[in-house]
Amino acid sequence: MQGPTQTPSQPDTAYTPSDRTVPTRSPDRASYDRDLVHAILDEAYVCHLGFVRDGAPVVLPTLYARVGERLYVHGSTGSRPLRAAGQADPGLPVCLTVTHVDGLVLARSAFHHSINYRSVVVHGVAHDVTDPEEKRQALDALVDHVVPGRSADSRPANKKELAATAVIRLDLDEVSAKLRTGGVNDEPEDLALPHWAGVVPVRRTYGTPDADPGLAPGTELPGYLAAL
Amino acid sequence: MQGPTQTPSQPDTAYTPSDRTVPTRSPDRASYDRDLVHAILDEAYVCHLGFVRDGAPVVLPTLYARVGERLYVHGSTGSRPLRAAGQADPGLPVCLTVTHVDGLVLARSAFHHSINYRSVVVHGVAHDVTDPEEKRQALDALVDHVVPGRSADSRPANKKELAATAVIRLDLDEVSAKLRTGGVNDEPEDLALPHWAGVVPVRRTYGTPDADPGLAPGTELPGYLAAL
Repeated sequence: MQGPTQTPSQPDTAYTPSDRTVPTRSPDRASYDRDLVHAILDEAYVCHLGFVRDGAPVVLPTLYARVGERLYVHGSTGSRPLRAAGQADPGLPVCLTVTHVDGLVLARSAFHHSINYRSVVVHGVAHDVTDPEEKRQALDALVDHVVPGRSADSRPANKKELAATAVIRLDLDEVSAKLRTGGVNDEPEDLALPHWAGVVPVRRTYGTPDADPGLAPGTELPGYLAAL
Repeated sequence: MQGPTQTPSQPDTAYTPSDRTVPTRSPDRASYDRDLVHAILDEAYVCHLGFVRDGAPVVLPTLYARVGERLYVHGSTGSRPLRAAGQADPGLPVCLTVTHVDGLVLARSAFHHSINYRSVVVHGVAHDVTDPEEKRQALDALVDHVVPGRSADSRPANKKELAATAVIRLDLDEVSAKLRTGGVNDEPEDLALPHWAGVVPVRRTYGTPDADPGLAPGTELPGYLAAL
């Protein structure tokens, strides 16, 4: 779903920094590497989508998918941001942020406590997807982004469902990643303090799939779920 | 840290809905229950903070803590939102959102795929915390929010560190929770389809703490970490 057919021209290996994507703090934690950005985006499926309504910020969690250099978000045609993207001309300014928490960093000093994380922030303008084929591909990608291989193993959306679903597109253009990795950065004069210091890894894990009680007879757990 | 001394008056058991906190879609998933909101907030430590800069939305991941009916976010005095909150009069309009992903909901139809989640969205105006005692309590709460009991087992911030750290406060006033729980909601005519359907639980787990190589001799792993 993320093959070269989606991006006709070969993109650069890095995004171009902009005023908005160069952080004022800890610039050493910022990256514009395209592969890194893609990897962070592909590992998550929930983003936080920010937009402005009546002059005030709104941040909502929502599913997303990446197809090449485009992100897609879907929702009901009645939902506020999707309606706004469809009505706004030339689109809805948004900020889409994805964050993984990888570890708790416990320093000897309260001040140097931190989190190991990887995040991507995308600035841009979201547009309503009106082309039926692009919309269908985006909806498949949204399902496959959560569980790879799943869209082929489910009943595709019918006309009524497609009509009830809005999809917006956000191009990956003004993009940055930010990361903290590694261990504790305590002050030299604190190293002898008797406080435990180190990193506690944090992971996302999956439990045992809980089958719907009404499964058709003989329906087995698919391999793509066992692989989770 | 979240005792009644922080909130002089006994609050109502629910937040009052507002235009911004009543969703246009799936209103049955919304809740204003104070205990539920607190529980969702207390289980996470990373929020997504949205604000408006030059007319465009910005969403950044950041640590937060709850003390009674107040949320605190900290950062460098040089960071953009914290600087903005300090400069803005009467404060910086923000939207602070916290989301837990609890499960992947795989329906027989692509359309009914979903996520079980619990989220809280807080609208309000963030203010710079200038009172030294409130600031110190907020910083302790930020450490204890991630690892309960940790602030008492670390070297407190000194004057220089306190001066380098900005803390902003956001009152819990215009607040809502939104949740999806339970199983698959397929259409009756899809129930006999041969696709597996059910819920895959998603959890946050902790790995084995990785101690800093330079720990003072005899420093043991503290009990509050073993409990994670």
